[in-house]
Amino acid sequence: MATQFDPPSGTRDLLAAGIEKRERVFDVIRSVFTRYGFEPLQTPAFERLDVLLGKYGDEGDKLIFKILRRGEHEASGEADLALRYDHTVPLARVAAAYGSQLPSPYKRYALGPVWRADRPGKDRYREFVQCDLDTLGSVSPLADAEVLCAHHDAVAELGVTAFRVELNSRRVLAGLLEAFGVPADLGPGVLMTLDKLDKLRPEAVTAELADRGLPQETAAELVAAMTAGDAEDRIRDALKQSDVGSAGLDEVDEVLSLVAPQLPPGRIAFIPRLVRGLSYYTGPIWELTAPGVAGSMGGGGRYDHLIEQLGGPDVPATGTSLGIERILSLLPDSGPERPGRLDVAVTVMAERLAGQSFGLAAAARAAGLRASVYLGSSGKLGRQLKWASDAGARWCLIYGGAEEESGTVTVRDLLSGEQAAVPFGQVGGYLSRAAAEAS
Amino acid sequence: MATQFDPPSGTRDLLAAGIEKRERVFDVIRSVFTRYGFEPLQTPAFERLDVLLGKYGDEGDKLIFKILRRGEHEASGEADLALRYDHTVPLARVAAAYGSQLPSPYKRYALGPVWRADRPGKDRYREFVQCDLDTLGSVSPLADAEVLCAHHDAVAELGVTAFRVELNSRRVLAGLLEAFGVPADLGPGVLMTLDKLDKLRPEAVTAELADRGLPQETAAELVAAMTAGDAEDRIRDALKQSDVGSAGLDEVDEVLSLVAPQLPPGRIAFIPRLVRGLSYYTGPIWELTAPGVAGSMGGGGRYDHLIEQLGGPDVPATGTSLGIERILSLLPDSGPERPGRLDVAVTVMAERLAGQSFGLAAAARAAGLRASVYLGSSGKLGRQLKWASDAGARWCLIYGGAEEESGTVTVRDLLSGEQAAVPFGQVGGYLSRAAAEAS
Repeated sequence: MATQFDPPSGTRDLLAAGIEKRERVFDVIRSVFTRYGFEPLQTPAFERLDVLLGKYGDEGDKLIFKILRRGEHEASGEADLALRYDHTVPLARVAAAYGSQLPSPYKRYALGPVWRADRPGKDRYREFVQCDLDTLGSVSPLADAEVLCAHHDAVAELGVTAFRVELNSRRVLAGLLEAFGVPADLGPGVLMTLDKLDKLRPEAVTAELADRGLPQETAAELVAAMTAGDAEDRIRDALKQSDVGSAGLDEVDEVLSLVAPQLPPGRIAFIPRLVRGLSYYTGPIWELTAPGVAGSMGGGGRYDHLIEQLGGPDVPATGTSLGIERILSLLPDSGPERPGRLDVAVTVMAERLAGQSFGLAAAARAAGLRASVYLGSSGKLGRQLKWASDAGARWCLIYGGAEEESGTVTVRDLLSGEQAAVPFGQVGGYLSRAAAEAS
Repeated sequence: MATQFDPPSGTRDLLAAGIEKRERVFDVIRSVFTRYGFEPLQTPAFERLDVLLGKYGDEGDKLIFKILRRGEHEASGEADLALRYDHTVPLARVAAAYGSQLPSPYKRYALGPVWRADRPGKDRYREFVQCDLDTLGSVSPLADAEVLCAHHDAVAELGVTAFRVELNSRRVLAGLLEAFGVPADLGPGVLMTLDKLDKLRPEAVTAELADRGLPQETAAELVAAMTAGDAEDRIRDALKQSDVGSAGLDEVDEVLSLVAPQLPPGRIAFIPRLVRGLSYYTGPIWELTAPGVAGSMGGGGRYDHLIEQLGGPDVPATGTSLGIERILSLLPDSGPERPGRLDVAVTVMAERLAGQSFGLAAAARAAGLRASVYLGSSGKLGRQLKWASDAGARWCLIYGGAEEESGTVTVRDLLSGEQAAVPFGQVGGYLSRAAAEAS
């Protein structure tokens, strides 16, 4: 039940365990992208409202979080700023603002939150991390192959094994429509229905195509070609009858010939029904899918005119977007619910000995370990040992009256239960060796 | 001059070089805090408006970025959400929401942007990173000493050397007022003026105190005591005449006795004039200052009732806040303006050889190096070498017709200008060894 202390609808508080997993994932992604020569870009959380408005269609505009004007203008009820809705519009603005100061081609990644006032649901948030990888300023298929491979490598390096890359081209789709004589006005709807061939039975797809106004015969032909045992051959033959289809086929084969040798066998396939909803793609398109998982782990494609449409310079572009929340949900929640916070817990047995205990924690930290003194008010060893164990500490240092007299510290190994009396000045070295043995 | 492509007033686009330095700083800070057993907390960028309103005073309320209601409610011109203004109010909400699920004490750090609609200026932004370290649930001076030491260690580990820690206590300030007979209603103003003793001449401070309504004699006495050669002794003697003053002195000495042994000699000092503006502090207070640098590198103190006042549970608390932008400005901009993006640049000498070049880049990445193929359209070696050098690559791989024939790759060391013919299949190993030698 939502209480007044919950975060706003569609947002989350991330405590230690949740952050740890996410940061590990982000680190892997950043390191793969860096290895491909991409550099980071961070833009502000908000943009001027006019920079965002009209860029995401009417439905998108409604989902933009708008920021009220301030001071004397607040009463107007008008907004002048808005929270970032994606990383692409800010990229277009940056490309326009910095122009020739940017390397050419400009290969950048953006990894950070975006905000959309969508209806919240399972795995659907109003604040969520988007991760984009884009190359601006290259028409080469090598640029498409590069962002695609980098996306693939990031997912693979995260430990996802059962996934595949579906490759297609916008020109293949145009060629398909042409080859099968689909009327131009039915094109977009027909493609959307064809894309359901991975979920619906062929007859259902044929029926839906007919409902859309496609002649029954054409619908049946199209579905038959795409679902036959030799579907790829039949589609390839059909595409060769059309100029745009042939060009699309070349495009697909070019990217395949670059990418396939770098991937495990069977990882990438030409999937002529793949549409990828967004209308701005102009060339190769791809999607990373995992069997049994609804939706994708992201995808992308070439979008040669979008940056200009979004207010940027007229540069060719290609990019891919990682479905971070989906990828996170595929990865195991490794480790305990709450990760250990400490390696070394130091008891405080008496107020007058607090300084020595504080110094022991510092010595443990100087040995590279996570360490803290007991901050509670109980003088009882049992309570303090409970704290040490709750914090996940491997070692507990005890320094009480007896230790003071003998000039030693009792080092208890909380895993084995064994303990040793270590001369006060040698605790750092002792822990350092013990940690090396334990790791 | 501001253009339509600039980020909104008071915000910044961070390109590669700027991000690199910041992330390095954040990594050090996180690693120090982790070593002290603090865990991260991330709260949403926005909170419900009522969670934030009224928590920062009237002036603060005006600086909150408010988010317009959405859908049918947008026309009302009302706001229901607001951008995070600091990390403390969200911490209070989290403490209330998660209660006993949190460890006790709850030691957390928050490192992330906050937003304030302040007038932008030099080093003053509307979107800036705040870094807070707080311990909830401990009344022990060990907790104060711990956050203070962690703050100190983070600054020291970043390489700042010339700084000091100024320590005081709210109770010392109350005791000073009492000991010198300052009327209660003049207290806050008198303290604010006394805090200027590090900037103004003693006579100017005395005059300002008199202007505030303090009897001339009291003003002179107070300033004399605080600026004398034996100021600390005189202040200590004065404080002992007051109960609250004595308690404050004990508090300061307790923290000093814990912290000073862990710091370089002279790094921390009892500074009775230190006020730290915020009225919510209840015990020890501190500030990290660097000589010749206006403002501080942050500071903090004990604030035992604030979490409850902010809507959280009634828990004692102590914390410190790092002045991130100030610390960043103290650190050198190491390295070149634009860091190298690549270790290995791979030429593409002919379209039909693109696949091999793409594979060579993959081999270099598999050897752990940052690598990319040339994505431009020029077939000229000179142009491609220029690209390689602009990208900061150490090695350039050339694979053209001659290399194809001999089954080798020309590996050019862009630093020495030397080049070698390496068998195609052995390029990864060759680069791996070369990189090991170079590092």
